[in-house]
Amino acid sequence: MMQGVLDIPEELQRLQEAVASGFERVEEVFATQLVSDLAPVDQMCEHVERYRGKMLRPMLVLLCGAASRSDLDPMLRSDSLDSMISDAHITCSAVCEMVHMATLVHDDVLDEAEIRRRGKTINAMKGNETSVILGDYLIASAYELCSSLDSPIPSRIVGQASAIMCTGELLQLHNRNNFELDEKTYFQILERKTAALIGASCELGALCSLGFDQQQNTITQALKGFGSDLGVAFQIQDDVLDLTGTLETVGKSVGRDLDKGKLTFPIIHHLANASDEIRNESLGLIQNAAQGDQSGLPKLIELLSETSSIAATQQMAQSYVDRAKARLNQIPEGPGRPMLELIADAVINRTH
Amino acid sequence: MMQGVLDIPEELQRLQEAVASGFERVEEVFATQLVSDLAPVDQMCEHVERYRGKMLRPMLVLLCGAASRSDLDPMLRSDSLDSMISDAHITCSAVCEMVHMATLVHDDVLDEAEIRRRGKTINAMKGNETSVILGDYLIASAYELCSSLDSPIPSRIVGQASAIMCTGELLQLHNRNNFELDEKTYFQILERKTAALIGASCELGALCSLGFDQQQNTITQALKGFGSDLGVAFQIQDDVLDLTGTLETVGKSVGRDLDKGKLTFPIIHHLANASDEIRNESLGLIQNAAQGDQSGLPKLIELLSETSSIAATQQMAQSYVDRAKARLNQIPEGPGRPMLELIADAVINRTH
Repeated sequence: MMQGVLDIPEELQRLQEAVASGFERVEEVFATQLVSDLAPVDQMCEHVERYRGKMLRPMLVLLCGAASRSDLDPMLRSDSLDSMISDAHITCSAVCEMVHMATLVHDDVLDEAEIRRRGKTINAMKGNETSVILGDYLIASAYELCSSLDSPIPSRIVGQASAIMCTGELLQLHNRNNFELDEKTYFQILERKTAALIGASCELGALCSLGFDQQQNTITQALKGFGSDLGVAFQIQDDVLDLTGTLETVGKSVGRDLDKGKLTFPIIHHLANASDEIRNESLGLIQNAAQGDQSGLPKLIELLSETSSIAATQQMAQSYVDRAKARLNQIPEGPGRPMLELIADAVINRTH
Repeated sequence: MMQGVLDIPEELQRLQEAVASGFERVEEVFATQLVSDLAPVDQMCEHVERYRGKMLRPMLVLLCGAASRSDLDPMLRSDSLDSMISDAHITCSAVCEMVHMATLVHDDVLDEAEIRRRGKTINAMKGNETSVILGDYLIASAYELCSSLDSPIPSRIVGQASAIMCTGELLQLHNRNNFELDEKTYFQILERKTAALIGASCELGALCSLGFDQQQNTITQALKGFGSDLGVAFQIQDDVLDLTGTLETVGKSVGRDLDKGKLTFPIIHHLANASDEIRNESLGLIQNAAQGDQSGLPKLIELLSETSSIAATQQMAQSYVDRAKARLNQIPEGPGRPMLELIADAVINRTH
């Protein structure tokens, strides 16, 4: 996500290098933590590693770690990369990414998805049963790794965020084929399903710098809130891409949300604002899609423009990004802050 | 399991009361931990609570907690129940049972089981997708609860045991329809899939009494080994019951192992010891069962008696129970020891 999408100004390049070097250390942790004495397990873990694309959560752990410190030189000239990013940051980065990977593996079971990041999904290759247990293995390994830290606080944060994620998924499943889903419930789902773990990543980054007893610190709270808002924006953008993207641009099957009877913001907005006539026509196409007939999708996207629903969705995502960025006024000046602002913008400007 | 099956001698009755009172406190923790602000989530959690039948793992946490202490009065007259069982014991009891419940929910997805403890399974009622996430929710809640303790050590033990469990499940899945499965791999699967968490339950019980820094203590190690051996015996008995039991006696669908191409000890023993002729006949029936035709099952059980394979399996389970009990020589004299011996015997004498 940083490479390509982000145009990194010169004064942030050293921070970018620090993140890149942190990523290498995260890779090593993955390699160590996910190795087992069983060849078939190792093979599947290797495959699932290609799910790691954006590394958004590790990036936020590392950047929030740097952004929490008021003692850094603005150009980071005097700070060694290793002193900026501690082993605890690396551990938490790997933990958050492993939890995320686990949810991707289980999501693919739920979504009956066949393609993820241009590769076959585990469930398509090995069946749902293996996917379920492989996801469990990733979760368990993440918790094991997290509890290698001296304090139980990070485990508490990760356990809690994971439990909240699950309630979000359960709420979403409960509302499948609920064609009257309202905005309030949609945001409840997003805050739980996506924002909780991204918020936790930022919180953990801050705590690894400030000390694990600093959960109530203004900086920790600001960064947790930043991550949470960013998570909502990220998921809204995901929902837009699922509707407007193609397999080629997004790298995974699209149109899955409607296929599985999941109403997302553009659709909710459209149904709430369309004339009765258009609303009925759209509802028919949506119900067809939920029953497996996707042929009406291009027409539906055309109808969405009648209510400017894609634009309204993008505005909504933008408002979350703006709120996230405003929270950064609470954290120390320094290179972390403009870098987090760049990330925030990139989250909704991405096309995959 | 204690009521009914066990004939508790008078000198152990006060310990039994302590466990019963501990169970009530575990129930309260369940009620608190699994409540959410979402009605549909709560409904499913309520249903899944009926999976809690034997409460073997909480019982072992509590009893190993008592058995680790050399300062208890043999009749427990002078010890208040609450002083014997700390909040940490209760927390660990609930955690181990929640992890176990999660694996049951996910196992039912793997096994496509429809009946568990005389009730419909979650997957039969709500579909595999909900089962996957509900299991995840139970695991996450278990970790969250475990990390409420002061030390990260219990989280480390639970995380590690869970990861090992998953590798056991993956190994088992990898060996589906492997009609040449050998004894060594069978025991590898059992030690990981079942024994790891039961061993961890006993270890946690000891550590809550002795202090979390006492992992290398002889008592802790002896009780962990006791639990691990008991776990293997327990799973062997489960495998026998799956073959010889009925839905009525066992309370869940039987014959599932063969149905899913899983070879268990009685079958492995039989195939290794039968004459070529009988071996071929049995193999045919086993392969039929793996393809959904269970009609040859009565005949197969008849053939098993030619090699005394059920008796050999029971002997194998007995040898694990004997080894488990021998380990108790390393722990303090007191009421905990004979009680653990009773439990050990009950594990292989049960019919459900």
